[in-house]
Amino acid sequence: MILTVTLNPALDITYRIRELRPHGTHRVSEVTERPGGKGLNVARVLAALGHEVTVTGFTGGATGRVVQDQLASTPGVLDALVPVSGATRRTIAVVDELTGDTTQLNEPGPTVTSAEWAAFLAAYEGLLSGVSAVALCGSLPPGVPVGAYAGLVRTARSAGVPVLLDTSGEPLRRAVAARPDIIKPNIEELAELTGSHEPLRGAQDARRRGAHTVVVSLGAKGLMAVTAEAHWHVTPPTHLRGNPTGAGDSAVAGLLSGLVEQLPWPDRLSRAVALSAATVLAPAAGEFDRAVYEELLGRVSPSPGTTGRS
Amino acid sequence: MILTVTLNPALDITYRIRELRPHGTHRVSEVTERPGGKGLNVARVLAALGHEVTVTGFTGGATGRVVQDQLASTPGVLDALVPVSGATRRTIAVVDELTGDTTQLNEPGPTVTSAEWAAFLAAYEGLLSGVSAVALCGSLPPGVPVGAYAGLVRTARSAGVPVLLDTSGEPLRRAVAARPDIIKPNIEELAELTGSHEPLRGAQDARRRGAHTVVVSLGAKGLMAVTAEAHWHVTPPTHLRGNPTGAGDSAVAGLLSGLVEQLPWPDRLSRAVALSAATVLAPAAGEFDRAVYEELLGRVSPSPGTTGRS
Repeated sequence: MILTVTLNPALDITYRIRELRPHGTHRVSEVTERPGGKGLNVARVLAALGHEVTVTGFTGGATGRVVQDQLASTPGVLDALVPVSGATRRTIAVVDELTGDTTQLNEPGPTVTSAEWAAFLAAYEGLLSGVSAVALCGSLPPGVPVGAYAGLVRTARSAGVPVLLDTSGEPLRRAVAARPDIIKPNIEELAELTGSHEPLRGAQDARRRGAHTVVVSLGAKGLMAVTAEAHWHVTPPTHLRGNPTGAGDSAVAGLLSGLVEQLPWPDRLSRAVALSAATVLAPAAGEFDRAVYEELLGRVSPSPGTTGRS
Repeated sequence: MILTVTLNPALDITYRIRELRPHGTHRVSEVTERPGGKGLNVARVLAALGHEVTVTGFTGGATGRVVQDQLASTPGVLDALVPVSGATRRTIAVVDELTGDTTQLNEPGPTVTSAEWAAFLAAYEGLLSGVSAVALCGSLPPGVPVGAYAGLVRTARSAGVPVLLDTSGEPLRRAVAARPDIIKPNIEELAELTGSHEPLRGAQDARRRGAHTVVVSLGAKGLMAVTAEAHWHVTPPTHLRGNPTGAGDSAVAGLLSGLVEQLPWPDRLSRAVALSAATVLAPAAGEFDRAVYEELLGRVSPSPGTTGRS
């Protein structure tokens, strides 16, 4: 069993309209809804890979019920979300049919009270006892202390559970000092943490700050991983055109599944890059095509020029 | 008891953002939600005026439950919405904080099956037996026949219940022939029905087509009413600056309450114009301030130049 934590989950709504005109009135031609927030996306991909996943974090209001109803119909995903009095946020992606361009409207999410935060901490500690790995994903909702992830990393380490952290800004900076097993920043997040836009240098700096392994997401250029012993750079086998929504979450699912399956690092990275690419190439945002994934997996390998021990 | 029918109700959501930029990402600073759709707005104003109101139409999905939860906490409003398998639509008003300009995104609403439509017709006929007037308001959802309002007008007339109709286009054209007691088109809707942009001429034409009384909404210029015996033009007592959302629905509530209280036409029109103006002047969209309404009511009267029997 793998645990994913999503402190600020969402109901992701997609609207298709002809073309967005500020201050105009638009008829929405198509509405789709699905559970969102990084940790829930990671869970969905892990479940599709055949892993059992428990999801926790917060849920509230009518939107929270919709998220939970949809999770209940996702095989392999166990709902352990903690109730809050506020309503789970919506995110609305407004897609222009003419161009495919997307305008995003993100609600802030409910303010979490200190009692609700305490209830979550108790639930989290209980859930850790039965899991082989935990992923801490995404932004913090209003009311949750900025050092939240640092505390969650420490609790996981005390319980002997490997922890992957995917967040940014001050919550990342504080949590890195608590020595997470893996962090997965993109170039901008890594630069904010370390001051360096050069991925290898930044990753080495992040390791000195406390992260055991740093996997840097390079967008269309793949992933770079820096461990205690080596570093690798893995690129997608093909030029990717498509929707990058959820590609980073698919990469996290690849890394996490490879961790619990005790794959060597190059295989974990190949899986993460192939999953991520299959997500970009899928017609629906945040989904991946299994056949495309398996085909790509056979063609991904650490590029020779940058492979090997550092 | 007054009955209002809203075949395509909505959950009206308002987002405040800094400024809408197409293809950008926006953080929503404030979210408000309330039941929407013309008939539900009319019911809320009638209840605030002290009338008991039953609301019917369709409800479905998580958004339908939110609408019903909010109706349940509105004193004076009785929920008799009929369940459908699809989800009640959302409308999203995105308000720019910098300018107050609003961008509107409207979901289409659920498709109503023929079985659901039949269930509604049975419920409607039952509800008519206990009411003193009925208002038929707004657009038709997908799946409802274009002659729907014509049938609902006939059923009400057979039951001896006065009927006010507030809709547009082909549903209005067909329903006018079924001889509703009052229709309340705006200038554009009247022109679409009659071909005339001149309100008095258009209203007289609409009367010939079957409407007993025609009340034309002239926007900031008030209302014109044409009955069998006379016509009046009532203007607001002050220049109105504010949000016109719901002003038309407040006017309908004014007309309908005046009808069941058996007020003379000039008093009904004064009430409708004062309520409408108090809605435009209220800080929250679609609400009205009772003190402002009462103050305005004392200052509204049919303007002498255009008053009197025609």
